[in-house]
Amino acid sequence: MAPDNPLLRDRDVAFLLYEVLDAPGLTRLPYFADHGRETFDLFLGNVARFARELAYPAYRPMDESPPRFEGGRVHVHPRVKELYPRLSALGLQNATRPYAIGGQQLPYCVHALASAYVAAANAALGGYVLLAAGAGRLLETFGSDELKERYMRPLYEGRWAGTMALTEPHAGSSLADVRTRATPMPDGSYRISGAKIFISGGDQDVTENIVHMTLARIDGAPAGIKGVSLFVVPKRRIEGNELVDNDITVAGVIHKIGWRGLPSLALSYGDRGDCHGWLVGEPNRGIPHMFQMMNEARLGIGVAGVATASVAYHEALAYACSRPQGRPLGQKDPATPQVPIVEHADVRRMLLRQKAIVEGALCLVARTALLADLAEHEIDAAAKERARLLLDLLTPVAKTFPAERGFEANVLALQIHGGYGYSSEYLPEAWLRDQKLNSIHEGTTGIQSLDLLGRKVVAGGGAALRMLGEEVRASAERARRRGVPADLVDAVLGALATCESLTMHLAGKGLGGDVEGMLLHSADYLELFSIVVVAWQHLDMAAAALGADPPTDAFHAGKRLAAAYWIRTEVPRVASIAELCRSGEDSYARIRPEEL
Amino acid sequence: MAPDNPLLRDRDVAFLLYEVLDAPGLTRLPYFADHGRETFDLFLGNVARFARELAYPAYRPMDESPPRFEGGRVHVHPRVKELYPRLSALGLQNATRPYAIGGQQLPYCVHALASAYVAAANAALGGYVLLAAGAGRLLETFGSDELKERYMRPLYEGRWAGTMALTEPHAGSSLADVRTRATPMPDGSYRISGAKIFISGGDQDVTENIVHMTLARIDGAPAGIKGVSLFVVPKRRIEGNELVDNDITVAGVIHKIGWRGLPSLALSYGDRGDCHGWLVGEPNRGIPHMFQMMNEARLGIGVAGVATASVAYHEALAYACSRPQGRPLGQKDPATPQVPIVEHADVRRMLLRQKAIVEGALCLVARTALLADLAEHEIDAAAKERARLLLDLLTPVAKTFPAERGFEANVLALQIHGGYGYSSEYLPEAWLRDQKLNSIHEGTTGIQSLDLLGRKVVAGGGAALRMLGEEVRASAERARRRGVPADLVDAVLGALATCESLTMHLAGKGLGGDVEGMLLHSADYLELFSIVVVAWQHLDMAAAALGADPPTDAFHAGKRLAAAYWIRTEVPRVASIAELCRSGEDSYARIRPEEL
Repeated sequence: MAPDNPLLRDRDVAFLLYEVLDAPGLTRLPYFADHGRETFDLFLGNVARFARELAYPAYRPMDESPPRFEGGRVHVHPRVKELYPRLSALGLQNATRPYAIGGQQLPYCVHALASAYVAAANAALGGYVLLAAGAGRLLETFGSDELKERYMRPLYEGRWAGTMALTEPHAGSSLADVRTRATPMPDGSYRISGAKIFISGGDQDVTENIVHMTLARIDGAPAGIKGVSLFVVPKRRIEGNELVDNDITVAGVIHKIGWRGLPSLALSYGDRGDCHGWLVGEPNRGIPHMFQMMNEARLGIGVAGVATASVAYHEALAYACSRPQGRPLGQKDPATPQVPIVEHADVRRMLLRQKAIVEGALCLVARTALLADLAEHEIDAAAKERARLLLDLLTPVAKTFPAERGFEANVLALQIHGGYGYSSEYLPEAWLRDQKLNSIHEGTTGIQSLDLLGRKVVAGGGAALRMLGEEVRASAERARRRGVPADLVDAVLGALATCESLTMHLAGKGLGGDVEGMLLHSADYLELFSIVVVAWQHLDMAAAALGADPPTDAFHAGKRLAAAYWIRTEVPRVASIAELCRSGEDSYARIRPEEL
Repeated sequence: MAPDNPLLRDRDVAFLLYEVLDAPGLTRLPYFADHGRETFDLFLGNVARFARELAYPAYRPMDESPPRFEGGRVHVHPRVKELYPRLSALGLQNATRPYAIGGQQLPYCVHALASAYVAAANAALGGYVLLAAGAGRLLETFGSDELKERYMRPLYEGRWAGTMALTEPHAGSSLADVRTRATPMPDGSYRISGAKIFISGGDQDVTENIVHMTLARIDGAPAGIKGVSLFVVPKRRIEGNELVDNDITVAGVIHKIGWRGLPSLALSYGDRGDCHGWLVGEPNRGIPHMFQMMNEARLGIGVAGVATASVAYHEALAYACSRPQGRPLGQKDPATPQVPIVEHADVRRMLLRQKAIVEGALCLVARTALLADLAEHEIDAAAKERARLLLDLLTPVAKTFPAERGFEANVLALQIHGGYGYSSEYLPEAWLRDQKLNSIHEGTTGIQSLDLLGRKVVAGGGAALRMLGEEVRASAERARRRGVPADLVDAVLGALATCESLTMHLAGKGLGGDVEGMLLHSADYLELFSIVVVAWQHLDMAAAALGADPPTDAFHAGKRLAAAYWIRTEVPRVASIAELCRSGEDSYARIRPEEL
């Protein structure tokens, strides 16, 4: 464990905010008017310091001592109890929220990068914040004033923690099949009964209360998605000035292979018939309410994904620069000293590949977060709508690319460590375990790919995709003017055109009634789309790097090489993936279970 | 953990041996003359039964209780002590060896498939056999009669265990830098001193003795590869009728993340100056001796890789067929029952992808093992030489493809299990951990790719590659005659031609003195080459499946769909990888550490 692992490089963060994405440009909007680079850097600096000095040293102890279930309660590593209030003191739960409710009105793009430091240091610890923020946000948006006062406030202040209680044992991702019941009471509350599973943070001994944002079905509600409502169901309910037990019990602990500082639980509601819940928002609108917050939740997973790949990349780089082994090709003289393994071309390939994935993904999540800022606070209506459409379009990519390709980067970081990488004395294997969750929670990669192709790219008659094309073409023009090599610019434009015409083709299939045919290669489509979107990030970064002074700076040269690597090795795959998506190759559509 | 997981399907094994590869054809050779399908099936059946009934149930306990280091000794799970003698009773250590030394003269291709059952059930347990067999084989080939009697015999009889003690802490894969010293004694023995690391099975409480096949440098030997010799260094040496401690101590335990029933240790030789070793083979020829046995050792890793992917595939398939969740696309009625997830196209894609990887890899390792049989026992000199060249060529692929793509398959098996896959209550995560080792030990993937491109494909002026081309073209013709769709046959032939011309191009670079340029994309080259080689396996399997009666059998239909899937989704990538290898894209050759 390198004690000086930067988690993320401050310079990368500054490069994205100030050289690539122009985050200070947001301060033209009234909501962000008090801000500027100085306040951004202050926030980022405080969070980065916390991440490096407190969260990172707690990572290994938390990974080694997973939650214990004793006496009906879940006990987590004591460091969580120490650190969670400090996270709240930094304002991570609500820094982006309005002053009026205790927030700092910071842009989400700044907050996302700040969160990345914490997630890189300690994904499980970051998870507590993600959950509290998500629960608070649902209450902020849909809750009555009373519910906000009672539940949102302590969540945002970091006194309480939150959960998202969606999944049930018999149905997994299929929210249409939620069975948890909510029976109306004369006082306007509900009695909740049912079972949930995989509830992260569903119990702990860190905060005095836990707010479960719970999907349940009001008695007599229609079957399916349209009969599911959203409730706030606290672990301990407020009665007078007291918190009393609200009849939610831990039915089991899932032994997760990563994020081990954050328990994942099976919960049982209302075993004694005394579990009280309160409706949030409109009845039977639980799923749409939940999904309205989904972009930020999914983007939060994207941040965790890139962060987990980033910390491993920096560890692998430090190892490769310090571990001597072997000699350059052609140097056969055994009397010469061994060289650090970074001198071997294949090791540099593995490092540059990680760099291209990590930096491309970081730019993508920061950009998507900036779109979220515009979608919420832009004052020009057309620009606001444009941001919303682009945000919707990019979210499944910003969630999935860091998870899937980040995992690939984590594998390479382990591989660079050789036999040491295969041992738990070194951290790459732990980060690999952490990363794997990100392709599963908040919608699996399969679900994201259906969302992208079946919903997002065809939304509004393809308006979002047209806007994406405009953005990429504008970036390409800028890159060309700044001197990015023409073959790189042309390759990205070519891949974009391929993606556009493929989308048209597939959408046509869908419109023609062949929805199965349209979605058959949705996983491949997501991969293709992601390659193009990430190539766009690299094009922008390369352009910014060329605009920088002095142009020979190693930092900026690295950006240009990462862009060249990505565009020359990944973008050429777009053509063959597109061909596959068009081919009608249907072996897995046709195969029957007994043939597998 | 599915109690009825088949590990491998018996029918797949029979299909490969009797419908695809014609293993009984080997019995025309004198060495195998006593054998036939009946003896093959008897051996396979016994091993499969052992694997299912004893080795598989021991897997989880062994994974959960890794070796303990107490009182200077390493204690492994007690089941190993129960099961190791039974493995020996089955003859796994030496079934392929001559009758004269206690073997059964079975073909290695039968033995490799039998070993795959054990490795699928319990990779760590299989590891003990791999090591004993490898150590025995070195002694059989290079040892004096006395050393064979003393050390090889108890290894082959399974009374003792063995290790391969190559790696040292300061040098990892760089065997030129071995420092362990061997000082000659008047009685012809040597005193050994030095340090080794990552020694699998380097200590345990299973067998009364452990035979360490150890690389060391005789005093005064030249520096580098050419001064390394091979020694047999037992944990306890024979003095009179006794075994006495031979001064090898455990310096540390590596906490491996997988293969946890098999300890990986740091060893210290000769701390008291009393560690005796005996030279095996010629002085200073340790590395060539070791490498002469390398094909089988690497193929053994390939078998472990495909086995670990296979057991996970069968688990994921069973899970997907039994886990209800969600409804088909277009079925919106929530009153209809949920369907098993195998009904979702993307789940079937993940299953078919695993199937294509697992079955392609299994065919490849069986074929490579059959080449090893011919390379050792063929009586026609030209055919024997041809087999040797093809064996050398295919070994890096048969080692690496199951490790790398098997890992991908293991990831998919976990993903199919969703949140359950992320927990240690289910086994997919354990198999994922096991699999990761296979890209590291016995030569990392990077080393295999240099071996393939830098050595194997250019050996003998490209003779091996020409022969491979002949084999693939003959398979293609047969496939065409049997009715495999022309687009599949043509795609494989096209990819083969691309591979051949790319190889020529790269070899030309090397001959022109630009060895670095030739090897720049060796990792990509290995991937391209593997896709083609595995496509060849699928072509052969599809042809065999079409030749079968009845042609509508689900088993054979599955083979044809797996072939179609592989050839239509992977083979198209060959063109773009080849373009990359030719492009001179050199971002990672050029990048400097400070730019990373």
